[in-house]
Amino acid sequence: MIDIDLSPTLVIGTGLVGASVGCALTRAGVTVHLSDAVSSHARVAASRGAGTTERPDPAAVRLVVVAVPPASLAAVIHNALLTYPNATVTDVGSVKGTVLAALRRSDVDLSRYVGSHPMAGSQRVGPLTANADLFIDRTWVITPHDTSAAHAVLDVQELARLCGGRRVTMGAAHHDEAVAQISHVPHLVSVLMAGRLTEVPAEHLRLAGQGVRDVTRIAGSDPQLWRQILTANAAAVRLELAALQDDLARISDALDDPRRVTELLERGREGTRSLPGKHGLAPVDYAKVVVEIPDAPGALARLFADIQGAGVNVEDVSIDHDLEREIGYLSVQVAPDGVPALQAAMLAAGWTLRDREPQL
Amino acid sequence: MIDIDLSPTLVIGTGLVGASVGCALTRAGVTVHLSDAVSSHARVAASRGAGTTERPDPAAVRLVVVAVPPASLAAVIHNALLTYPNATVTDVGSVKGTVLAALRRSDVDLSRYVGSHPMAGSQRVGPLTANADLFIDRTWVITPHDTSAAHAVLDVQELARLCGGRRVTMGAAHHDEAVAQISHVPHLVSVLMAGRLTEVPAEHLRLAGQGVRDVTRIAGSDPQLWRQILTANAAAVRLELAALQDDLARISDALDDPRRVTELLERGREGTRSLPGKHGLAPVDYAKVVVEIPDAPGALARLFADIQGAGVNVEDVSIDHDLEREIGYLSVQVAPDGVPALQAAMLAAGWTLRDREPQL
Repeated sequence: MIDIDLSPTLVIGTGLVGASVGCALTRAGVTVHLSDAVSSHARVAASRGAGTTERPDPAAVRLVVVAVPPASLAAVIHNALLTYPNATVTDVGSVKGTVLAALRRSDVDLSRYVGSHPMAGSQRVGPLTANADLFIDRTWVITPHDTSAAHAVLDVQELARLCGGRRVTMGAAHHDEAVAQISHVPHLVSVLMAGRLTEVPAEHLRLAGQGVRDVTRIAGSDPQLWRQILTANAAAVRLELAALQDDLARISDALDDPRRVTELLERGREGTRSLPGKHGLAPVDYAKVVVEIPDAPGALARLFADIQGAGVNVEDVSIDHDLEREIGYLSVQVAPDGVPALQAAMLAAGWTLRDREPQL
Repeated sequence: MIDIDLSPTLVIGTGLVGASVGCALTRAGVTVHLSDAVSSHARVAASRGAGTTERPDPAAVRLVVVAVPPASLAAVIHNALLTYPNATVTDVGSVKGTVLAALRRSDVDLSRYVGSHPMAGSQRVGPLTANADLFIDRTWVITPHDTSAAHAVLDVQELARLCGGRRVTMGAAHHDEAVAQISHVPHLVSVLMAGRLTEVPAEHLRLAGQGVRDVTRIAGSDPQLWRQILTANAAAVRLELAALQDDLARISDALDDPRRVTELLERGREGTRSLPGKHGLAPVDYAKVVVEIPDAPGALARLFADIQGAGVNVEDVSIDHDLEREIGYLSVQVAPDGVPALQAAMLAAGWTLRDREPQL
């Protein structure tokens, strides 16, 4: 392997993702310069260990990482290719095709540009939570185009490696289709369902169980960010939505035919099982033990100490809160053969067991 | 308040819900008889403390609780009204209108029938997990019809009270519309989205984050039970689906218009906020602290003991597992002003903090 030196790197845009790239590269020994349209953001990122706010020598810059909001990506990448004539330029945007198409419409040489998309980040947009570990063991998609130079691809692979990501290479259109299917359309479906709730009387909402909460949770995300993502990937998203519309029309037709309804439900269950499970294995059906907990500091610590006394391995936990009483329920998922021992230990320690499976 | 004695009560159908009603009534001092088309189920329920499998004197039965699968409800209720001439008859089915309509087509006197729907239960169908606490603090909808006798309504209210449920009274059609909106259609939306995943290449599924998992989780539920629920409530569900189809078509049209996309996303966010939050209060935005944990017995107990040491109140927790490495991440939700103390305590105790917010 060729020894690649990414120093100095310039990070443009010091929100959470850009600042975290700076932190990870700095920790790896790379010299990082930071710039942001809001200069105070770059200073905050620098104070978090993401790099320096000093301007680099344009001719010396080896790598530019563009981490600005989706709507500004193409313009900032274009300028970077012109301003830093010897640098590889990449970006961390969550949609790749529209950016590449916009760049192609300009007359800039794109051989030094290679797109990428680290699958990490959050609704929090500021650099205050920047973190050198943000990308560790997360998928980092690299999207070379057909005129990307080999050295530029190697530079971006090295960037992902230094940040601790798991590298996956695919074309821009392929990437956009994949994220439309497994991220953007599921997001829209959640938004769609949550939007319907605005027309549901409050009296009906009192009957809501965990199911509708799960389905609508991600609809609470930042609308400004998602507007940019969805409009940038409109073509791939629209294709998926058309398939969804066909499916929805079929569901409405099928409702009076028990055999077709069963097929539909079986297909859904098959779909949930196609998602990779824990540790990359097929999903396992764990058993649940539900314990009532007072809503006060320390109760969970005592409870977990008692669970430890039972000697069973906890696969997952979740907490559900009662709407009116000041108590909660801890659902502990364990392998089915660990249930009797756990239940016995809980009762022996004075905890109250409950049944709080999802409502129908 | 009139003193109502429900002894003896007959529970027909000893799956989880029927057997749990038996356990709750038995604990409250009511004499409970159990019957099931599969007699071994009734014996298992009896062994769980749900009542006796001895046959009651038909003329003496005060209350019959019908807890059979949705498709059999109308026939079993009809027979119960004829067989137990002095009993109030109720059921615990999750759809009320179709059952009432089927009963009305027969010539039986319905004054002793009052429908109900305890909002508790699970995908587990057997009596082995029966539990006298199943209904405590859960909504129990009571659906009197226009010829229900007052004494029958009072009997069913007493049933719900003895089981610990929170009683809500509404008409059958009103109930069915409400559960279509907040349970059946969200379920179908999850099924629909999960079904699309069966056509997504495995390589794309590797990019799946928490969002698509949340949206599709309930699609993993029992297809046989949901077939009966959905076909029984087809009319109300179809109405809601039509509105959803209109919304979906509008989304597809709106994708090129950033202003309309923003409106759509804002409406979704408003919808998530309309669901009642913890303890009946408006939802609060908690902050998350994410800690890496080895996937071994006892680690969580040590971790919670350290969290207790920080003196902050834990609002919620969830565990996320790494797909390839044998570790997990514990997300601890606390009030935003508790974050610095918690982070400091975690670091002082040697834990590794991580950023694992939902993927985009």
